[in-house]
Amino acid sequence: MKNEYVLGIDVGGQTSKLGVVSSQGEVIAQSVIRSDTYGSDSAAFINALAAAVKDVVAQAGVEIKGIGVGAPNGNYYTGCIKSAPNLEWARTNEVHLAEDLSKALGGIPVTLTNDANAAAMGEMAYGVTKGMKNFIMITLGTGVGSGIVIDGKMVYGHDGFAGELGHTIAIDGGRPCGCGRKGCLEAYCSATGVARTALERLAQSDEPSLLRSVEKISSKDVYDAAKKGDKIALEIFDYTGYILGKAMANFVAFSAPEAIVLFGGLARSKEFLDEPIKRGLNENVLGLWRDKIKVLYSALKESDAAILGASALAW
Amino acid sequence: MKNEYVLGIDVGGQTSKLGVVSSQGEVIAQSVIRSDTYGSDSAAFINALAAAVKDVVAQAGVEIKGIGVGAPNGNYYTGCIKSAPNLEWARTNEVHLAEDLSKALGGIPVTLTNDANAAAMGEMAYGVTKGMKNFIMITLGTGVGSGIVIDGKMVYGHDGFAGELGHTIAIDGGRPCGCGRKGCLEAYCSATGVARTALERLAQSDEPSLLRSVEKISSKDVYDAAKKGDKIALEIFDYTGYILGKAMANFVAFSAPEAIVLFGGLARSKEFLDEPIKRGLNENVLGLWRDKIKVLYSALKESDAAILGASALAW
Repeated sequence: MKNEYVLGIDVGGQTSKLGVVSSQGEVIAQSVIRSDTYGSDSAAFINALAAAVKDVVAQAGVEIKGIGVGAPNGNYYTGCIKSAPNLEWARTNEVHLAEDLSKALGGIPVTLTNDANAAAMGEMAYGVTKGMKNFIMITLGTGVGSGIVIDGKMVYGHDGFAGELGHTIAIDGGRPCGCGRKGCLEAYCSATGVARTALERLAQSDEPSLLRSVEKISSKDVYDAAKKGDKIALEIFDYTGYILGKAMANFVAFSAPEAIVLFGGLARSKEFLDEPIKRGLNENVLGLWRDKIKVLYSALKESDAAILGASALAW
Repeated sequence: MKNEYVLGIDVGGQTSKLGVVSSQGEVIAQSVIRSDTYGSDSAAFINALAAAVKDVVAQAGVEIKGIGVGAPNGNYYTGCIKSAPNLEWARTNEVHLAEDLSKALGGIPVTLTNDANAAAMGEMAYGVTKGMKNFIMITLGTGVGSGIVIDGKMVYGHDGFAGELGHTIAIDGGRPCGCGRKGCLEAYCSATGVARTALERLAQSDEPSLLRSVEKISSKDVYDAAKKGDKIALEIFDYTGYILGKAMANFVAFSAPEAIVLFGGLARSKEFLDEPIKRGLNENVLGLWRDKIKVLYSALKESDAAILGASALAW
């Protein structure tokens, strides 16, 4: 069989990664451009992206059939990015990324979706959920995103914004969230949520902890301390994992997935999160699902998963 | 075009309703049998049901292409009813209803789903969500059930049990629920939940209320008192509606539906529930959906909706 090729693009807050992907899922050429040096000028970003596409395709020496893009707040139906807090050029205005990038490249088809959906598609095509028809991907990064697959298909919903599980309420009347509401899952189970929990815990007692000497605590610091057996750091992961597992119990009642897959920076703390996640899930889920839902961790390299997922969109 | 016919069956705790339905959605013959006079003998119920099918089909004088059945805890994938608390013959054992009914009728195809899914399919085929591709049906009866439609298709999930939204946690650490957990939506927003709220409220103060003279309060009593302007009865509906609306805010973040449709006995209290439901939803939903999700009320007669929904399954 002749190999065919598409291009996957992962648009992130700091950088955007491009990869030419074969129909076998092999990334045969890659490049990176910055996403954060265009101020609010979305046209300048799209021009730079189009130039980078031409370069990486020339480097690969193949023809591509289409382009798939994963981006924060990317909408599959409209092809637009809107109200993306981490992309200055898409913070207030609506950016017609799919249409404008396609135009800049002579009409090649461009399909857009949000970054968590792209990760879910990458996982379904090449990762731990290969061949699975019903699963939920939860991305644990700076924020908490999600991509929901039902009956082998991405769920986009009526308006293309389905799968905002990071903004379901995990703790009634809890911490303020960046979205303007209180108690969202994202306020607890993201990397920033873990750092906030650390500050709360340290303030609650005088117990010694390695974290007390850290100047600006990140989730990585909490991980490092937990590795050394720090009691407070371990408690922070226990608290975080249990909240996530408990929230997952409600997600299961919605779509009865075969598995929930965790992805992103914080998911690398699996050794500390896995037990409290499963405890939170199984103590709170409806009896018929107790001990039946698989909790999996993505094994794809993060940058690959996003490019592969975006490319899966282009096929 | 020649008319074709199927049979829809709605299995309920007390009675089971049968209807022969044309491809235009017309119920051309109906009958009812009891569901609760067979003790734990599921075979006796299935025999009685098969006899009733033959009678109603003979009465209609047409041939049927298939049978669709909606039943509590009915599983689309397995064709079985299991652990249905309100059906004595399916309380502990697994009843192979689809297979056994088909056998008793000479092999005619029988498809089963749960009652809330059947209601959602009836609504999609003939009701307020006709032509809608993304909506959630919530049935407010003795319990709270749900049927989720995404991209025009029922969501069954990995195991056929998707859509147990009555058993998502609405109030953390709240009232015990029949399922053995605490704070489920069903414990608050069902007819029995409303009656429990009434007892709680009456115990909280000495305020006069028409409900104080009612011996065994039902949700109907609360409705009647609210109709007469009873302050406590009105508060009960306000409390119930707000909890439901708030829970709906989380459901929206999952599947981004165009509408949420309410169905069942308690939904008839729309005049008292509608405002607090919308307030609960819009005060708690992520900003991008505020004031955008339709809250609808089924206009189908309850018995018709269930028969029509079950019949939709048979096409």
